[in-house]
Amino acid sequence: MASSLKQRCKYAPFFNKVCSPQDTIKFFSNGCSVGWSGFTPVGDPKVVPIALAEYVEKNNINKENNPELKMKLFVGGSAGPYNEDRWAKNNMISYRSPYQNADSLKKQINSGKAAFQDKHVSTFIQDVSWGYYTNNLPLDVVIIEATEILEDGSLILGGSVGSSVEFAHMAKKIIIELNTATPSFKGCHDIVDTWKPPGSPLNITRVSDRIGSLSMKIDPSKVVAVVESQLQFPGRSVASANEDSKKIASHLIDFLTNEVKQGRLPESLYPLQSGVGNIANATIEGLQNSPFPNLEVFTEVVQDAMLPMFDSGKLKFSSSTALSLSSWDQFYNNFDFYSKKIILRPQQISNAPELIRRLGVIAMNTPVEADIYGHANSTHSGGTKIINGIGGSGDFLRNGYLSIMHCFSARKTKVDPYGISCIVPMASHIDHTEHDLDVLVTENGLADLRGLSPVDRARLIIDKCAHPTYKDQLTEYLNMSIKETQSRAAGHEPQILSKVFKMHTNLLENQTMHLKSW
Amino acid sequence: MASSLKQRCKYAPFFNKVCSPQDTIKFFSNGCSVGWSGFTPVGDPKVVPIALAEYVEKNNINKENNPELKMKLFVGGSAGPYNEDRWAKNNMISYRSPYQNADSLKKQINSGKAAFQDKHVSTFIQDVSWGYYTNNLPLDVVIIEATEILEDGSLILGGSVGSSVEFAHMAKKIIIELNTATPSFKGCHDIVDTWKPPGSPLNITRVSDRIGSLSMKIDPSKVVAVVESQLQFPGRSVASANEDSKKIASHLIDFLTNEVKQGRLPESLYPLQSGVGNIANATIEGLQNSPFPNLEVFTEVVQDAMLPMFDSGKLKFSSSTALSLSSWDQFYNNFDFYSKKIILRPQQISNAPELIRRLGVIAMNTPVEADIYGHANSTHSGGTKIINGIGGSGDFLRNGYLSIMHCFSARKTKVDPYGISCIVPMASHIDHTEHDLDVLVTENGLADLRGLSPVDRARLIIDKCAHPTYKDQLTEYLNMSIKETQSRAAGHEPQILSKVFKMHTNLLENQTMHLKSW
Repeated sequence: MASSLKQRCKYAPFFNKVCSPQDTIKFFSNGCSVGWSGFTPVGDPKVVPIALAEYVEKNNINKENNPELKMKLFVGGSAGPYNEDRWAKNNMISYRSPYQNADSLKKQINSGKAAFQDKHVSTFIQDVSWGYYTNNLPLDVVIIEATEILEDGSLILGGSVGSSVEFAHMAKKIIIELNTATPSFKGCHDIVDTWKPPGSPLNITRVSDRIGSLSMKIDPSKVVAVVESQLQFPGRSVASANEDSKKIASHLIDFLTNEVKQGRLPESLYPLQSGVGNIANATIEGLQNSPFPNLEVFTEVVQDAMLPMFDSGKLKFSSSTALSLSSWDQFYNNFDFYSKKIILRPQQISNAPELIRRLGVIAMNTPVEADIYGHANSTHSGGTKIINGIGGSGDFLRNGYLSIMHCFSARKTKVDPYGISCIVPMASHIDHTEHDLDVLVTENGLADLRGLSPVDRARLIIDKCAHPTYKDQLTEYLNMSIKETQSRAAGHEPQILSKVFKMHTNLLENQTMHLKSW
Repeated sequence: MASSLKQRCKYAPFFNKVCSPQDTIKFFSNGCSVGWSGFTPVGDPKVVPIALAEYVEKNNINKENNPELKMKLFVGGSAGPYNEDRWAKNNMISYRSPYQNADSLKKQINSGKAAFQDKHVSTFIQDVSWGYYTNNLPLDVVIIEATEILEDGSLILGGSVGSSVEFAHMAKKIIIELNTATPSFKGCHDIVDTWKPPGSPLNITRVSDRIGSLSMKIDPSKVVAVVESQLQFPGRSVASANEDSKKIASHLIDFLTNEVKQGRLPESLYPLQSGVGNIANATIEGLQNSPFPNLEVFTEVVQDAMLPMFDSGKLKFSSSTALSLSSWDQFYNNFDFYSKKIILRPQQISNAPELIRRLGVIAMNTPVEADIYGHANSTHSGGTKIINGIGGSGDFLRNGYLSIMHCFSARKTKVDPYGISCIVPMASHIDHTEHDLDVLVTENGLADLRGLSPVDRARLIIDKCAHPTYKDQLTEYLNMSIKETQSRAAGHEPQILSKVFKMHTNLLENQTMHLKSW
């Protein structure tokens, strides 16, 4: 046994479980259900999934019509471009839940070759632990990356918690990947156990409050293998801010500044949640230069842009389920400094409706498109093609103190620099409804929708948010719909169903949402 | 001062505020914002709204183009067919939030003559107290029905709590309607104050737990009038169960029985939430004869069908924001018995996501239509015409342990006994998304959607739930959509946007959703 492994494994009964990744292949079988630790892809297992992929590749056993090792894969968040994608390429995934972000898998899902369930980050994992997705059966094999095994056999996880607790609870067999290349993350976690109703109040009233333990208890008798890993993948990298995303950030900061002035927000704001992408990145960068002191973050994923905010003291503390950094050097080189400013929690806690509402989280997420009434599509391009999944956007938008969505007003196609309007008559797939959205913002401006009726929202969204080249077209549609429906007393939220997706069908046919006529 | 009034008003400083309903007219002005206590219409003010309506009628001051007393009306739930409708008839309502159920008002809203904001019951009221809908200004006048005024000036409310606490907090002036015809409801309430983030945990882990006070504290200096009332309106009456609703109830009880057998539910189930209507009624009646003992209810509104369940001991306890009975005799004649089995809470507590999730509420609501993928329309007939509003359905469906929707598979039109299919390719307005629904049930059968991919959900919903005369039509659409989208790797949730509302447009044109062809 390697000395690096022995240093990190302080529970002697596991010593005789130590084996190579290849030795674990026997625990997997065709049709079995598999759970991975990790989130975005941080803290996910590496060497065991690679060994399985190599085994399938070398023996060429997963022919399209006759796979011999195709499995149901559960991972709390995206596992991403590495092993999730490789498993998909090898035809190893029959079913995935509740989120994915792997090109090959995405293609299979959109072609009907793999099944995918798209579920809120917070509810997914409670449903798993209640036996909803396995017909009460255990998950056959759960692979968990740990950075240390303590004397009592409990695990110190790595840069994420995700669904590890619930998966271990539901596991028939557990394989531990002990990562000896990263530091032990001891001290970073707040591990809360699974529960059945009635649960207990989550006694968190400040972002930095702890209610759980530093390590994750597991049933040692379930552990069938302990494998050393020295691999590390970068987390999701985020495109940097461009001019338009900076404009969005600026509109948002003006809005928040006014909310402070009106007494609806304290000067340090309330805890922030920020989605992924260059707009979120620009907003975070904008906050770095804003007047708001001592900010806190209560979010799903901590990203690159937050490290400089810790450095400057602008950001006081963060709670999340994952730390997703595109490069780990800065974090590891200052591990003592950063690790005291973060808490990593199970995704049922990082995204708990109870906490999001109680703490007054300001939720900021990016949709694919939003409609004139404030419904938003976060998941399906063209209404039918899955991108990644809803993730935690619904957890935060529904329960936030302020629910904000930000996107560019238009995107280019091959034939039209503004061929896709992100403001449409009706979102072609709806993940978030008009009942949840407070503020919509694009590079053109910000629409404060609070308290408004649908028609008033539509006028404001077209005026403030739509791309200039679409304003007349959308206004014409709105006026036409008002006339057609209100004249027969059926127009609280006017639409003409026969034309409502004409911009979308025109995009499919002509690669632009600019119409010749309605 | 009437002795009846003096008996119920134990706070002497209010004696000199006692006046007639007509004396309060001066506190209202054109454009002012008004809050009413009450919910469904129980506990709402009566004699003051009537006095205002009579004043407008007698003096004919609200001509359509030149109203002299048109107001913004905030009531936590529906105020219903009495004063809400009369105010609307008199052109007295310019804006209403967050729910309504009054024919005249509905017609105005759908004709663009009155504005309406449709918001979750739980978030609406928090937003009000945070100044979101009044630009931080107070509500000009708040009218609260009480059944007793205590020695400290605090109020014992009546058969509902609704938004009274938050409205009083936001009020510039308060008018109290002291109802001396009903019993004092002292002991029935659990009044919790308004809050700003960060809030405190709501320490309720059993339906019967209390965290607040019996009476509602108000600032006595805001009280401008105390008016006696002896009026009482019946609550919402519910159509009785028919054969089809009994079939739905029977499918549901079979499902719950199996969940108990599988160990996913305890034998007393978890607390039940039940929407309004004859299906809900049939379900409750079905539970009366079910094997489940000691049931509890954690819901928005207690209705008629629950009283016999208290009588039989089947129902142990209920928590709600309103007690909406179509006749009050049985309740008042056994006030001591029933009042010990209920708690009435503010709607921010009765519908709190935190509590719904913690208690594991089984949520059951009726949509207008659901689609093959599990999105549901709860608010807009034909996608554009508001019915009542989302109410608390979103609070419960999103956060419930089991999220169930029940509806008839089809409804009749003038030309076709099954002219409207309640299962459609895409809901014409989406209030609840596929990410929230666990179970869909019609008289034909029950679809357990947990864990399934969109296409698998669609097949199951068509098979189990759709009306037999629509099964082939829906299957043809589904297969066509799969072919069209999956062939271009864009079909995780197959739709053909150019045809997706063809059943709806055919209904508008030909009064049936049965198509000649797609």
